[in-house]
Amino acid sequence: MTPEDAMALAIAESERVRGATSPNPPVGCVILDEGGKAVGFGATRPIGGAHAEVMALHEAGTKARGGTAVVTLEPCAHYGRTPPCTEALKEAGIKHVVHAVSDPNPRAAGGAKVLTDAGITVESGVLEQEVSRGPLRAWLHYARTGRPHVTWKYAASLDGRVAASDGTSQWISSETSRREVHELRAKLDAIIVGSGTVKADDPALTARDAGGMPLARQPLPVVVGMSDLPRGAKLEHTALHLRTHDPDEVLAALAERGVVEVLLEGGPTLAGAFLRAGRVDRVLAYIAPALLGDGPAAVLGAGVSTITDAVRLTVEDVTMSGPDLRVSAVPRT
Amino acid sequence: MTPEDAMALAIAESERVRGATSPNPPVGCVILDEGGKAVGFGATRPIGGAHAEVMALHEAGTKARGGTAVVTLEPCAHYGRTPPCTEALKEAGIKHVVHAVSDPNPRAAGGAKVLTDAGITVESGVLEQEVSRGPLRAWLHYARTGRPHVTWKYAASLDGRVAASDGTSQWISSETSRREVHELRAKLDAIIVGSGTVKADDPALTARDAGGMPLARQPLPVVVGMSDLPRGAKLEHTALHLRTHDPDEVLAALAERGVVEVLLEGGPTLAGAFLRAGRVDRVLAYIAPALLGDGPAAVLGAGVSTITDAVRLTVEDVTMSGPDLRVSAVPRT
Ligand SMILES: NC(=O)c1ccc[n+]([C@@H]2O[C@H](COP(=O)([O-])OP(=O)(O)OC[C@H]3O[C@@H](n4cnc5c(N)ncnc54)[C@H](OP(=O)(O)O)[C@@H]3O)[C@@H](O)[C@H]2O)c1
Ligand SMILES: NC(=O)c1ccc[n+]([C@@H]2O[C@H](COP(=O)([O-])OP(=O)(O)OC[C@H]3O[C@@H](n4cnc5c(N)ncnc54)[C@H](OP(=O)(O)O)[C@@H]3O)[C@@H](O)[C@H]2O)c1
Repeated sequence: MTPEDAMALAIAESERVRGATSPNPPVGCVILDEGGKAVGFGATRPIGGAHAEVMALHEAGTKARGGTAVVTLEPCAHYGRTPPCTEALKEAGIKHVVHAVSDPNPRAAGGAKVLTDAGITVESGVLEQEVSRGPLRAWLHYARTGRPHVTWKYAASLDGRVAASDGTSQWISSETSRREVHELRAKLDAIIVGSGTVKADDPALTARDAGGMPLARQPLPVVVGMSDLPRGAKLEHTALHLRTHDPDEVLAALAERGVVEVLLEGGPTLAGAFLRAGRVDRVLAYIAPALLGDGPAAVLGAGVSTITDAVRLTVEDVTMSGPDLRVSAVPRT
Repeated sequence: MTPEDAMALAIAESERVRGATSPNPPVGCVILDEGGKAVGFGATRPIGGAHAEVMALHEAGTKARGGTAVVTLEPCAHYGRTPPCTEALKEAGIKHVVHAVSDPNPRAAGGAKVLTDAGITVESGVLEQEVSRGPLRAWLHYARTGRPHVTWKYAASLDGRVAASDGTSQWISSETSRREVHELRAKLDAIIVGSGTVKADDPALTARDAGGMPLARQPLPVVVGMSDLPRGAKLEHTALHLRTHDPDEVLAALAERGVVEVLLEGGPTLAGAFLRAGRVDRVLAYIAPALLGDGPAAVLGAGVSTITDAVRLTVEDVTMSGPDLRVSAVPRT
């Protein structure tokens, strides 16, 4: 198996634990024996548990000797809640380490050097983009900035409305898109809405399967706004209520709780506030092939008054989600 | 050459004359000799001129004898401004006719029967979708309904705004998209805007090349609204000014002038009126990866007040046009 093929498997491993490892990164690891056969698979365990390398080495056992560790993130070299992975790799007799992304965290970095000093060859950058835009995207952002990564998701008609003029919005997007969003919710740490959305829609913000049953992992629901939640609202006892209008206060409060990745689910006012503050790291738009011609727009007051000040994005990806368009875009830097 | 390959060439022939044949259809024809070699190419000449089959037969000369005529539309069997093509095909000694689309026009139809009666084998439906959604789309609509085919085109931000809050809209979409629109303009008969767009943007509605020079074919500019055009407006002396608010009156006036295909270029009020009246046959949206958060939406008052009444579309095609998304969609029937 080539290092690229093994890395693709390591990515798949890491995807399985996305949303369950914060504030640690969801890392995946595959151990190849001396002959290049995959003999161990592992992914980060929930906080306090073992790292991906240790899990994979455990499965490989003595077959790891003389082999290669293929891992999505540079192995750590520091004593945190667990001993350094570099030690475990050395002890297991690993001869080569291949990783996708270098660790941006100064405390954890230096793993490659420790390994090289121990006579292990280290190759970096294999499927780097796939990993840094994929499973480790949010965590890399968090490690670099100290702030959770924010994906603003909305569902709108082709003419940009998120509800009809009477306020109805169920359902603008297709069942396929809604199911996709529920799967996404289960893979991240928190979902944020503003008071206005709670008043209008009384959402539960849970991640459910096609049959309406809750998925195994549930994100933390967060409501932002000064007003009290309406009595009897579904979120009344489950949500973290942050009485502020400042996106940075919201993100700081969440970072303190170990939140690495959040989904901002609106509404238009809160989305405008996050955009104005430059705190939207990715836009995920589900655009339904429908026209409304009236009703609220996806975002209100993004701080743009003339065309040259538009918040310009770069489209990363466009796919169909059932009949809907799914557009993923990032602000231009 | 297979009939499919020849039909692809016939389509390309017809594309060259799009916008120059109305109210006749832009048809393409390729003559294959007895051995299947392409020996003649033709497309509809401007009104009063020869049909595609006659042009192609002329080029093929005696090589047409025993050969095949591959043509995008069923050959006509009636005496109009020109003699029937079925006669020309018989005289040239054509043995087989392959066409994509049957003629919906009762006056012209029956060509296939006339040919079969003369001992010529006729095959229909080759690349039918490509032709009926492509070069003959507008004309087929016109032949069936008596109304010009309306493509509503707009350029908006991802959040559905067609201008910023100060009214500036140059340029929301990219140069690539704007160039594409100019090429499209040259391929159809008329461009419609409302008085509001004339007042706001003073457009010329000409089809220009990348260097700003007018293209060879120019559509008829049409302004719809009760108010007089502002003095000195670029369209003051060039546009057809229709003083009505009724889309059907607009389309009837244009059909009378032999207009088969129109581009509705807005603005939001006029687009809303056409949508309400069910007179948008296709939506062509250029969506720029930018957020405005304020400013007018692409369509105003489409007659929808609740979500279940949304004008539902089917996406036909999504492509990138430079950095922009280009979405082509048709109303669901
Ligand atoms: N289609 C979709 O994707 C989607 C998603 C969500 C919502 N929606 C629709 O959006 C509508 C609700 O819109 P909305 O704009 O009222 O919802 P919102 O953005 O969720 O809530 C607005 C409220 O958030 C609080 N807030 C927090 N930070 C703020 C800031 N920096 N500036 C101003 N206010 C701030 C304020 O509440 P306090 O007064 O309590 O401070 C404000 O009234 C509903 O019709 C809903 O259906 C659609
Ligand atoms: N980005 C784009 O693709 C795009 C394209 C076009 C325009 N725009 C923008 O759109 C804005 C102009 O918007 P707009 O809505 O005023 O433009 P509009 O739709 O072009 O013009 C509206 C006018 O059309 C007339 N009209 C014709 N039929 C009507 C009907 N059935 N109902 C009501 N009015 C009818 C009325 O004028 P009378 O009073 O004379 O009867 C009305 O005031 C400008 O900011 C422009 O830049 C953007």
